[in-house]
Order: sequence, then structure tokens, then C-alpha cells
Amino acid sequence: MQKRVFSILVDNTSGVLSRIAGMFSRRGFNIDSLTVGVTADPRYSRVTVVARGDLIILDQIEKQLNKLEDVVDIKKLEPGRSVCRELILVKVLCDESNRQNIISIADIFRAKIVDVSIESLVIELVGSQSKLEAFLRMLKGVEILELARTGLTGLSRGTFDVKIFDEDGRAMEYDFMQE
Amino acid sequence: MQKRVFSILVDNTSGVLSRIAGMFSRRGFNIDSLTVGVTADPRYSRVTVVARGDLIILDQIEKQLNKLEDVVDIKKLEPGRSVCRELILVKVLCDESNRQNIISIADIFRAKIVDVSIESLVIELVGSQSKLEAFLRMLKGVEILELARTGLTGLSRGTFDVKIFDEDGRAMEYDFMQE
Repeated sequence: MQKRVFSILVDNTSGVLSRIAGMFSRRGFNIDSLTVGVTADPRYSRVTVVARGDLIILDQIEKQLNKLEDVVDIKKLEPGRSVCRELILVKVLCDESNRQNIISIADIFRAKIVDVSIESLVIELVGSQSKLEAFLRMLKGVEILELARTGLTGLSRGTFDVKIFDEDGRAMEYDFMQE
Repeated sequence: MQKRVFSILVDNTSGVLSRIAGMFSRRGFNIDSLTVGVTADPRYSRVTVVARGDLIILDQIEKQLNKLEDVVDIKKLEPGRSVCRELILVKVLCDESNRQNIISIADIFRAKIVDVSIESLVIELVGSQSKLEAFLRMLKGVEILELARTGLTGLSRGTFDVKIFDEDGRAMEYDFMQE
């Protein structure tokens, strides 16, 4: 079982999300996470999918994704060569007796308190998936009322694999543009 | 045209994501964003969908979503009563002449520099969608090489609408538990 992060550049059209999600679910493949957002070029959205499975099947899925008409480019985001982050919001139950303790844990992780009521706190934290898991482990013993997380998004480091698209949607390697 | 943020609690099963995305796309309804992540209770995932459209159609979609077998609960996250955040990663082209200027803009927004190379920076920023848009406007004139965003996630403020699920998956209002 391997974990792989796909960064998929797609046409910004209705339906592309369900086609990509469907490609995984038709094989009974559960996606760890999927995020999507429009890029600086409004013609395209970037979808980041975290999937886990057999390497051969992951390679097959990549090939199938490449065949989808809406898919413009696919990259694998590899640990050392990319920056991957996730955002999490956690609502915890608290009162005077444990509020300060929870705020101290949040401070250690450089998390932010974004809502407070007499009996609850909402904490915002950004980080790698291992950082978020460590934070949730530290909250053991605290009652988590609600939790929302975005799933992972990421970019490769540096400029080695940047592609820019011209007016006709043709990919140009970034180095090419420097000439 | 109204914007609505749905927070949808679903069974954590393969295929639920494509069913939800499909419900919007079948109506030719483009989703502004969709995020998904498992909750503190591993039986459930929370899907946050931002959709824009006619109020009557948004109400219809909510009813249809409620009929899906995997859907456990739906809330609307309303501006004053919720905390909504998005995470964005932006890779910009830079050199000695404008690196300090870009870092200063990042500082104003309390953004973080998470990767640096001779000719690029990757900036991480979390905020409301209007904050992220203001940041991107400030980067006008800077070449954006790549951009990845997670889409919006959020939680309601306080504890007024918290639901907890018992072993059989029956919802209990949070106040009920206080007795």
C-alpha cells in the first residue's frame, strides 16, 4: 500500500469533479482526500487527490485520468520535492477548568483560536498531515464536538516542472519562456 | 444569484463524493468549491460545498441531498454565525529585485513563505475568501507560476447546532447530552 498525491490541472467546467471522483470510486478506491480550486488562469482548476493503494493500480488510474478530456496535466507531488498542506477547524468543548490548557496546546502548534463561546472553542490549524495528526493526538481527553478539514493541497518546490499555457491552451515549459 | 455554503455530514464510504458532486453537475450547476475530510468520528466525513445560484434551486438541491442515503446531516453555514476559511498556496516568479517586496506583502497578510528558490517563492495563506482575493489583488504585477487552493471549509460558531451520534448512528442534540 502506497500513498500518492496527484496534482491534476483540469478545465474549469461543470462535471469535471464528479468525473474525477467517479474514476476512483468505480474501482472501489477510497480517496483519502480531494481538494479543488480555480488557478490564477481562470480557464483551469487544480484538483489535488490523495489516494492509497497498490502501485500498479495507482499507475493505471494515472493513465486513465490522463485520458479524460478535461485533464490538462498531471503531476505526482513527492515528499521532498513538494510542499503539501492541509487546513483543519476543530470545535472543542471547554469550560474555565480546561480552556487555558487547550489554548496552550494551540499555541505550541501555532494554531489560532477563531471562535470562543462559554462552552466551546474553534481552533484553526494549518500543516502537513503528520502535524495535524500530532495536534489531534494532543487533544486526547478533550471532547471534540465538530471537525472540518479541507484535505491536502500542494505545489512542487522550485520551478523545475512549471508549465504555462498559451492562449490556445498549449503547454509551454517554464524554462522555454526564459529564452 | 445567491452564494450558499452547505456543510454536509456523510458516511465515510467510497463513492459518496462522486454522488454529491454529481447531484450538482447533473443540473449543470457549477460548484464554487468542495472540500472533504474525515471527522473526529471515523464513521463520518464532512463535505463543505460552496454553490451559487437561484434560491429556489439551492433549496431543491438541499432537499435532494437530504434524500441521499449516505447523507447524515446538512447545515447551511451563514456568514455571521459561522467561521469559514480557505488555504491557498501561490508560487510566484521573483528575483533579487522584487523578492523583498513580495515578502513584505506576505507579511502584511500574515502569510508564510514555505519554499524559496533562486527564481521563485511559495506563499501559504489562510483566510476568508475575501482576504485571499485581496491578497491576490496585491500580487498584481507579480507573475504567478502556480496556484493551489483547497476550497472553503467551515464550522458554525458556538454550540447551538452541534449534533453527536451514538453507536447506532442516531443523532443527539448537544444540549440533550448535558442533562
